[in-house]
Amino acid sequence: MKRSNYYLKTVTTAPKDEQSVNAKLLVQAGFVNKLSAGVYSLLPLGFRVLRKIEDIIRDEMEKAGGQELFLPSMHPAKNWEKTGRLATYEDIYKLKEGEKEFVLGPTHEEVAVPLAKSFIHSYRDLPLALFQFQNKFRKELRAKSGLMRGREFMMKDLYSFHADETDLDTFYDKMTEAYQNIFKRVGLSEKTFFTFASGGSFSKYSHEFQTLTEAGEDLIYICDKCKIAVNKEIISELKNTCPQCGNQKLREEKAVEVGNIFKLKTKFSAPFDLSFSDAKGEKKTIIMGCYGIGLQRLIGTIAEVWSDEKGLVWPKNVSPFDVYLISLGAEKDHKVKKTADKLYEELKNAGVEVLYDEREASPGEKFSDADLIGIPLRVVVSPKTLANSSVEIKKRTEKEASLSPTEKALKTIIAEIK
Amino acid sequence: MKRSNYYLKTVTTAPKDEQSVNAKLLVQAGFVNKLSAGVYSLLPLGFRVLRKIEDIIRDEMEKAGGQELFLPSMHPAKNWEKTGRLATYEDIYKLKEGEKEFVLGPTHEEVAVPLAKSFIHSYRDLPLALFQFQNKFRKELRAKSGLMRGREFMMKDLYSFHADETDLDTFYDKMTEAYQNIFKRVGLSEKTFFTFASGGSFSKYSHEFQTLTEAGEDLIYICDKCKIAVNKEIISELKNTCPQCGNQKLREEKAVEVGNIFKLKTKFSAPFDLSFSDAKGEKKTIIMGCYGIGLQRLIGTIAEVWSDEKGLVWPKNVSPFDVYLISLGAEKDHKVKKTADKLYEELKNAGVEVLYDEREASPGEKFSDADLIGIPLRVVVSPKTLANSSVEIKKRTEKEASLSPTEKALKTIIAEIK
Repeated sequence: MKRSNYYLKTVTTAPKDEQSVNAKLLVQAGFVNKLSAGVYSLLPLGFRVLRKIEDIIRDEMEKAGGQELFLPSMHPAKNWEKTGRLATYEDIYKLKEGEKEFVLGPTHEEVAVPLAKSFIHSYRDLPLALFQFQNKFRKELRAKSGLMRGREFMMKDLYSFHADETDLDTFYDKMTEAYQNIFKRVGLSEKTFFTFASGGSFSKYSHEFQTLTEAGEDLIYICDKCKIAVNKEIISELKNTCPQCGNQKLREEKAVEVGNIFKLKTKFSAPFDLSFSDAKGEKKTIIMGCYGIGLQRLIGTIAEVWSDEKGLVWPKNVSPFDVYLISLGAEKDHKVKKTADKLYEELKNAGVEVLYDEREASPGEKFSDADLIGIPLRVVVSPKTLANSSVEIKKRTEKEASLSPTEKALKTIIAEIK
Repeated sequence: MKRSNYYLKTVTTAPKDEQSVNAKLLVQAGFVNKLSAGVYSLLPLGFRVLRKIEDIIRDEMEKAGGQELFLPSMHPAKNWEKTGRLATYEDIYKLKEGEKEFVLGPTHEEVAVPLAKSFIHSYRDLPLALFQFQNKFRKELRAKSGLMRGREFMMKDLYSFHADETDLDTFYDKMTEAYQNIFKRVGLSEKTFFTFASGGSFSKYSHEFQTLTEAGEDLIYICDKCKIAVNKEIISELKNTCPQCGNQKLREEKAVEVGNIFKLKTKFSAPFDLSFSDAKGEKKTIIMGCYGIGLQRLIGTIAEVWSDEKGLVWPKNVSPFDVYLISLGAEKDHKVKKTADKLYEELKNAGVEVLYDEREASPGEKFSDADLIGIPLRVVVSPKTLANSSVEIKKRTEKEASLSPTEKALKTIIAEIK
């Protein structure tokens, strides 16, 4: 993609109405645009990141046996009355249309469960795991954390249905692993902790995946022996003790919840009478689990964790492009234009995703944009590099650039981004 | 995908609460599930169709130079006040949160235009075409046409921004062609007419793409000479005359609007003062166009056009799978199971999307499911076909099946689905 055709403009100064690092950087670098507090447009650059994350999550959900569908956002309010959450769920938006009352889905148990009821009758229909990517809507009184807390955000939610608790436990472990794979693939594994949280009235614990960041709104308590954490909600109840090894020296850290998994058991299947006939023909209530990840929050968290004073530093799996190719002085030096144009075409043909900054702009402007946008590899073609029959290659994570002979550039770049 | 693991159940009798053919068939064949009037869940089978249509539309939008982004559904009501549509747009849902008032986007001009305003300053930033796939929300008092008229539906909307009307005209023609390609690729080209509609106060005409079907809620008037149509809205104004050739023998037909394109000109750019500096440094108002396609409506229309008394008949580009593979009597005949399992693996490895009906069910049940679901090619492995060292192959559009030698089956199937 050529910069001059691309809907991307960086902003010289950080937006004043944003308090969080992630929103400041993502707005400044042209990934997102704020419509109102907690409501962001994803611009083409940000949309590419969203799609890459979505593809990683989809891959892991499918590997774990999940089947994708797409549920509505408009839920009949009566479904929420049935579970009692119409009154208790604080963050819910309601819609009226004549006599009809709808809820704008902040989560989807109230739709997924009755849907499963139309299709699950026998033990042969179990287990079942259904997931979707879909906008959720939640009232957020304090939407001050940029993309980390939104009124409207894309969520992957998966609902699993089981014949018994053993089967739920097996699947829950599989999901734990899938989530760990996801956080590894998006570049957050080192800072992300499997965290014990309250299980509500139905389970002993649920689990959160908490990523360490100063921007986090949560406090977690890390056991350095087990590499797990406990959240604030249950730390007193556990008497400041690791639930796995009994370690009492837990370390407090700020963190953000990037995913959570929950053994719902019969919490939602019971009110909807979601049951099945077992092998003996006996009717039993279905056991459930639910598993969520908010995508904008994940983008915001990556931006918090992977950034420096110059801008964003995308992990390669979620970077909007693989290479930021810069030509300098091409308007005066035909050889620069020819070499850079050729390299751009070659990279595209090799399947490399390249953003080509061929604008007539100063080197300083192009370099600071490259740093701000944070694509993993910067490649420069200039009269100076060509005087050495080379192009310049620099990783966003490193300070030093190096020269690569022009004729080997394509190979070198492909090796670097792998 | 094996049927016994797939979240798919067909229903023996058509649902009684549906009036339209498309909803009856799509519900019965397990593509969608009704949550409330005009609000449908897309089940895994229906979601696959949605994704295929989305990919075709995305491809055509990108070829025409469109850049994809993702705008919010929650719009500040003040944006809609600015264009005057908060009062005049009848089908709009409103949300309140304390002092804040939001509109749930039925269309996105009120967000796309102010967004473009932050980025377009000079003639060098033009033209620009931004598109998205996103849920729209509209109050529908009479949501009786199944998927063809929904309260909530996925829409592709593209907004184009131009320096002058000539540039808009050029792009409008390009979009016309892109839309024609889309309707061709999804199997609707023969029944779809480029239809003249009212241009409102800003343009002489807008254009709709209308597909002939008895289920359509619109009336159009076809000129058989030009192969274009005129919609009911402007037929009297045109004195029943073709606007292209003057033909006065127009033929009335029932149709459904599957897409529309509109020269907005300055209708939305003016209220938001969306302008640019031209080459001489003069400030000018930007000229706009908008281009929409509703995806569920397209699915519903395809179901109306491509179905018969036995069920759905998917055009191959949008079929959820390429092949419906059936094994008969595999539970008793090991050779059937072995041959069908092998063919299933070979097809998958060859990149063929195959739904494998390996359930222990009667031939009648499997055959009627194959017809109801409507995948283009049915392949049967049974003791009878194997007695002839063959598998049976039948197109959904044809009555007769034919035998293909087992060892050539893979090749034959691949040739058939191309």
